[in-house]
Amino acid sequence: MLEVALLGTGGTMPLRNRRLASVMLRRNGSCTLIDCGEGTQLSVKECGFTFKPIDRICITHFHADHVSGLPGMLLSMGNEGRTEPVTIVGPAGVGRVVNSLRVIAPELPFDIVLEEQSGREAVLTWGDCRLTSFPLRHTVPCRGYRLDVSRPGRFDVEKARRNSVPLAAWSRLQKQPEVTLDDGSVYTADMVLGPPRRGLRFVYVTDTRPARVISEMAAGADLFVCEGMFGEPDKRDRARASGHMTFAEAAELARAAAPRRFWLTHFSPSMPAPTAYAAEAQAIFAETRVGADGDRIEIRFDEDE
Amino acid sequence: MLEVALLGTGGTMPLRNRRLASVMLRRNGSCTLIDCGEGTQLSVKECGFTFKPIDRICITHFHADHVSGLPGMLLSMGNEGRTEPVTIVGPAGVGRVVNSLRVIAPELPFDIVLEEQSGREAVLTWGDCRLTSFPLRHTVPCRGYRLDVSRPGRFDVEKARRNSVPLAAWSRLQKQPEVTLDDGSVYTADMVLGPPRRGLRFVYVTDTRPARVISEMAAGADLFVCEGMFGEPDKRDRARASGHMTFAEAAELARAAAPRRFWLTHFSPSMPAPTAYAAEAQAIFAETRVGADGDRIEIRFDEDE
Repeated sequence: MLEVALLGTGGTMPLRNRRLASVMLRRNGSCTLIDCGEGTQLSVKECGFTFKPIDRICITHFHADHVSGLPGMLLSMGNEGRTEPVTIVGPAGVGRVVNSLRVIAPELPFDIVLEEQSGREAVLTWGDCRLTSFPLRHTVPCRGYRLDVSRPGRFDVEKARRNSVPLAAWSRLQKQPEVTLDDGSVYTADMVLGPPRRGLRFVYVTDTRPARVISEMAAGADLFVCEGMFGEPDKRDRARASGHMTFAEAAELARAAAPRRFWLTHFSPSMPAPTAYAAEAQAIFAETRVGADGDRIEIRFDEDE
Repeated sequence: MLEVALLGTGGTMPLRNRRLASVMLRRNGSCTLIDCGEGTQLSVKECGFTFKPIDRICITHFHADHVSGLPGMLLSMGNEGRTEPVTIVGPAGVGRVVNSLRVIAPELPFDIVLEEQSGREAVLTWGDCRLTSFPLRHTVPCRGYRLDVSRPGRFDVEKARRNSVPLAAWSRLQKQPEVTLDDGSVYTADMVLGPPRRGLRFVYVTDTRPARVISEMAAGADLFVCEGMFGEPDKRDRARASGHMTFAEAAELARAAAPRRFWLTHFSPSMPAPTAYAAEAQAIFAETRVGADGDRIEIRFDEDE
C-alpha cells in the first residue's frame, strides 16, 4: 500500500484555506515529502502526520513557494527527535540552496544527504521503491517525480521444487532477494517466485508547460498529480508566459498518459474556486479530480483491492 | 495615532491556531513589521493589511521562527507592486542572513536597505518616528525594539507674535520644522510652538532572559509587548536554559517599567492555553494581558482619547 496525501494545492502564495502545493507519500513507515513551501509543516500536522519519519524531501525547483518551508521543517524534524540522515533531492544546485537556507537552521541532530539530479532520468531507490526524477519545462530548472513500488511474483511451489530449493529457504525467499543456508548453499528469490506483478506508480508534476516526457512518465500511473495553475481556458497565454498550464493543457497530458486517477493541484491565488473549472478538464479526461488540501488515498496492489 | 497588531503570538513552531510571534505597527500609511516567521504573510492578510506599505522589517534575531517567512514576504510585497526601497533592520549579520535567504527570492522589484545594528542603542528615524534597538539576553545575539512617536507642542500665538513670525508662516510651521517665505526670511517651528507634548511609546521584546535594559527601555510605554515563553512557574529552569522567561519573570520587568499596557506573547507550543496562567503575571503586574493572534489597538495621543 502507498498512501498519498495532498498537503496543499496552492501556488505562488499561501491562502487561508489553501496551503502551498506539497504532497506526502507514506509506505512501510517511511515518508517522502515532495516540495516544502511556507506552511507545509502545519499541513503535515493537520493531516495527522509527524515529522520524524520523513526520510527524504524532494524539491521540484527553487521558487520560494516550493521550498521556503524547508528550514522550519528540518528544525521541527529535529525537535521531534530525528537522528537518522535525511535525503534532500532536487535539481542541480539543491546543495547550494539548502545550505543557504540553513543559515537559520545551522544545527540539526541529523545529517543531510544531498542528491543533485539532472538529465533525462535520475533514480533513487530504497526498499521496494524506485524514485525517478525527470526534467520539466518551467522558467527555471524544475523536475517531476515518479515513485514506482515494485511487487514480486507469487510464490511458485512447482518452480521452487524444480530448482531444488530446500523447504527451509521458502519463507525467507518471499521477503528477501537471497538466502544462505547453514550449509553455505545460496538461493535467490527468482528460483521460487513467478514473474513480477504490477506494482504501484505515483507521478507528481509541477511547475511546467506541457511536455511529452510528462505523459510518458505518467503512463499507466495509479495516481498522476499534476499542476493546473489556471482553470480558465482564456488564461492559456498567461500560463504560457509563466511556465504553467491551464486545466485543459494538463488534462491533455492525462489523456495521453491514461492514469487510473488524475488529480489537479497548484492553483493560482487568482482562482478562488478551482472546482468551478473541473468540467474544462473532465471534457478531455473524464477521471479528472480537482484536488483540495487534505485529499488522500491509500493505493493498494491490484489483488488487494 | 499608532496602530499595533499582534500578527502571531507563538514561539518555536507555528500551530494551527497560533502563528509565530510577529507584530505590525502602522502610522500615517507607513508600516513597520517586527519579526517574520513562517506564515507571517498569512497573518498580515488575515488582519486585513496589505504588503505594499511595509516600509521596514525589523528582525529580533536569526532563529527560524522569527525570520523564516522573510523570502515569501518580500516576494508578496513585490507581487503587490511595491517598488520603493524596503529597510531591513537586525542585529549584526542581518545582511548575511537576508542575502542567504534570498537564494529563493533573488529578483525583487525594489531595493533592500540593510541596517545592521549593535551596541547599547541604535536608532533609525523617519517622519515623527524614532526606532531604537537594544541588546537582549538570548542564546544568540538578539535585539528589542522601541518605537517613539514624537508630538510637537501646541501652537502658541503669543510666542509667534513675540518672535515676529508673519501670519503667512503660522499654518505651515505647525506641519514642518522650517519655512522660507518669498522674501527669503526663514522661520522655525520652535518660534511658534510650545514645549513638546507626550508622544507615544511602543516596546517589543523577544526572545530574552530578564535584563535591566528591558525595563529601562519600556519605562512609561503606552504598550509593552513582551515574551512569556512559559506560563507555568515551575518552568523557570527551562526558561533559563533556553534563554526565555516565565510569565512571572516578564511581569517583574513590567512592574519595574510601569507601562500603561502590558501584553504577553511568544508562547511555547507546549502551552495550549496561555490564558490559564494570566493570574501568575497579574499578581505581579495587574495590567497584564495575555496576548492572542489578531489582538490590536489604536494608541492615540493623550488629549485625543
